[in-house]
Amino acid sequence: MSRITEAQKKIIEDAWEGDLNQDFLKVFEFGILTVSSENPRGAFSGKGDIDENFIRKAVKSYQADKIKEISLKDVNTKSDSAVERIAVAAGKISEEHIEKASENHRWLMQSENVLGVLLEKYIDSKISKQGWLWCAGSFIKAVDFIYPLESGEYKILQIKNSSNSENSSSSAIRDGTEIEKWFRRYATTGKYNWDALNKMIEEATGEDPGFQESDFMDFINKTLTK
Amino acid sequence: MSRITEAQKKIIEDAWEGDLNQDFLKVFEFGILTVSSENPRGAFSGKGDIDENFIRKAVKSYQADKIKEISLKDVNTKSDSAVERIAVAAGKISEEHIEKASENHRWLMQSENVLGVLLEKYIDSKISKQGWLWCAGSFIKAVDFIYPLESGEYKILQIKNSSNSENSSSSAIRDGTEIEKWFRRYATTGKYNWDALNKMIEEATGEDPGFQESDFMDFINKTLTK
Repeated sequence: MSRITEAQKKIIEDAWEGDLNQDFLKVFEFGILTVSSENPRGAFSGKGDIDENFIRKAVKSYQADKIKEISLKDVNTKSDSAVERIAVAAGKISEEHIEKASENHRWLMQSENVLGVLLEKYIDSKISKQGWLWCAGSFIKAVDFIYPLESGEYKILQIKNSSNSENSSSSAIRDGTEIEKWFRRYATTGKYNWDALNKMIEEATGEDPGFQESDFMDFINKTLTK
Repeated sequence: MSRITEAQKKIIEDAWEGDLNQDFLKVFEFGILTVSSENPRGAFSGKGDIDENFIRKAVKSYQADKIKEISLKDVNTKSDSAVERIAVAAGKISEEHIEKASENHRWLMQSENVLGVLLEKYIDSKISKQGWLWCAGSFIKAVDFIYPLESGEYKILQIKNSSNSENSSSSAIRDGTEIEKWFRRYATTGKYNWDALNKMIEEATGEDPGFQESDFMDFINKTLTK
């Protein structure tokens, strides 16, 4: 029996564009189950009440992550010539190449910014059919994927790109609920950690999703919009 | 009469390499004057007591900022090929140029990291002779330069590189002490704001320091070590 109230469901249906997705309702319900009197927001991100405004934003950001095309956009701030001057003065980039290098630097900063959501999209593309749910839209904090068990409990997974990415605070999850954490690559060696994720998923759901770095690269190639 | 105790002075003299600099003592004393019973650390950065360990670290970081040569160093983490793949897949950087672009990207990130201290060094180079003191070493928080007035009060200056740089918290300074804030450039237009700094300094000390962007570029060229 769902813990989502009729009033909440109405707000969700109203905010949703297109046919309402059951997966969103399941992720939202997970959030509600983490709410308690000691922890009135549970795993929901942000502050304040779980009110109409919050629910509408959650729907929008969830749909945006799920649907929107990922592309790199021109930035509207100007690059700082002092930064370029430093690299040239230190003898690291030639005067001749600095303008192009600076432009490419901005594209690579943007690439870094979209990597996180691409990584989650890739993982989602291979484990959603097993029943894993992507907590897209960042309205649940510190949790990226959940897998509802028959017992009513969940397997919970937090994804990071690198061994040195900052840890998300996960204090909001109820005591006794274990969060499995995985990162894609070791920052110091550059080695990849996909095998650990394959094993983690297989242990939970009996099926090896077959993640590998070359497959992730293929996913990036076909997902990015030029 | 100095507010620095004999015990504190001994620690400073012991930690200091070379001839003890009076400017450091003046900056340290400014920190002590901001300490009160309600605010036991005053403007000193960090946590815990203003003990021997803290004072030794303050001396070391102050001397490092004042003396050390600034250069860009090879980084020991490996670049993430997914970031490169994204920029190529999005059609922003060609396959042929991506490796070089990625290497230059790392130099430019390092350049961004040293810009802040270079900016303070440049300003220090032109206003120290007027009696302004550079709070080098970041052991005083949210304050970059101070100018002791005859009244025993101080002019206090906080420097940022850009109009959109994050504000440092300045809650530690005593009530009623005004911090003048200045930034070098407007992020959206790329215009420079040196005239405002020249005016601010001239109002305090009667002399226009003559800051200008082209002069700062010259300073970068002669300060960076290849």
